[in-house]
Amino acid sequence: MTNTRDQILETTCDLLENQGFHATGLNEIVRESGAPKGSIYYYFPEGKEEIISESVAYAGQRVAERIQAHLAGTEDPAQAVQSFVETIAHHVEASGFRAGGPLTIVASESATTSERINQSCQEAYTQLRNAFAEKLTRAGIESENAASLAWMITSAIEGGIILSRTYHTGDPLRQVAASLFCLIKNCESARSAGTK
Amino acid sequence: MTNTRDQILETTCDLLENQGFHATGLNEIVRESGAPKGSIYYYFPEGKEEIISESVAYAGQRVAERIQAHLAGTEDPAQAVQSFVETIAHHVEASGFRAGGPLTIVASESATTSERINQSCQEAYTQLRNAFAEKLTRAGIESENAASLAWMITSAIEGGIILSRTYHTGDPLRQVAASLFCLIKNCESARSAGTK
Repeated sequence: MTNTRDQILETTCDLLENQGFHATGLNEIVRESGAPKGSIYYYFPEGKEEIISESVAYAGQRVAERIQAHLAGTEDPAQAVQSFVETIAHHVEASGFRAGGPLTIVASESATTSERINQSCQEAYTQLRNAFAEKLTRAGIESENAASLAWMITSAIEGGIILSRTYHTGDPLRQVAASLFCLIKNCESARSAGTK
Repeated sequence: MTNTRDQILETTCDLLENQGFHATGLNEIVRESGAPKGSIYYYFPEGKEEIISESVAYAGQRVAERIQAHLAGTEDPAQAVQSFVETIAHHVEASGFRAGGPLTIVASESATTSERINQSCQEAYTQLRNAFAEKLTRAGIESENAASLAWMITSAIEGGIILSRTYHTGDPLRQVAASLFCLIKNCESARSAGTK
């Protein structure tokens, strides 16, 4: 039975990623997920706001795990982040510019309109930022500096996804990837310079 | 009569900035702008897609001018960009996190759903990028490097606006401002190092 719930959440994530929550209706979620209509009310008795909020949490968890797994594969944090952002560029291209940034639209839409969804978006972005910050601190970057860089990394990726979808090319994200590499490298050398 | 048209466009920009285009209906535009209903069809005979598309163009022009005016006030490009991004942080806070990024939501929503609106979003983002790139080249940064930085600046600002609205604080944008300062400074020194 857990599968039906996850199936509903995954479908909702895809719809949110593509078109945001204003444009996403319960009927569309039912139709696209293939779940029996009754199961929506069984798993999410509080309706649309609950489904969206849980989907955002689900997306945050899934993306944070993807970030951790990818970053773990490369020792150098600047190279690891650059290569991760390049995979997003590829993902956005492969989706025909329909996907990328499961939180982007819903976060903007709900910022001041739904406290519950806004709270989920905050928690999801915090998971993403923490995944980046942990990699940076594990590589020896001082924790305040790492936290600050993690805000920038998350912001630049979110904006890079918007530009890549808008221009129908992964190149804006590749520019972001190269700039983040430079930024993290310079931060590292500033740190080394400071401690030597 | 030009005033009524501009009034409709400004109202639409505010609605797009706050909630995107799926959630924005013609009736709401009429109500919020105070324009006579007939004037909407007079100025925009092709309907909602035309109004949104023209509003995006209007927003792009207005924001590009604001960028140019602000950046012209400070000679150093790194300081100029940092200070500009700090004014956005203030603007987002002053709006109660309802405003900031007139293109953000509509660009994502329309990326693959409306060719006409997508085209306007591309043109608007290009105006923004050019405003940054021109400041950087005027300050002596090599044009390819300036263009590349302009993608990063635009991406980081767009994402920083999303995070600031989501977390209900201008601090993410202030982190972005500080990181962009560092990035532009390092780019400049890399260039000087290369030419010396």
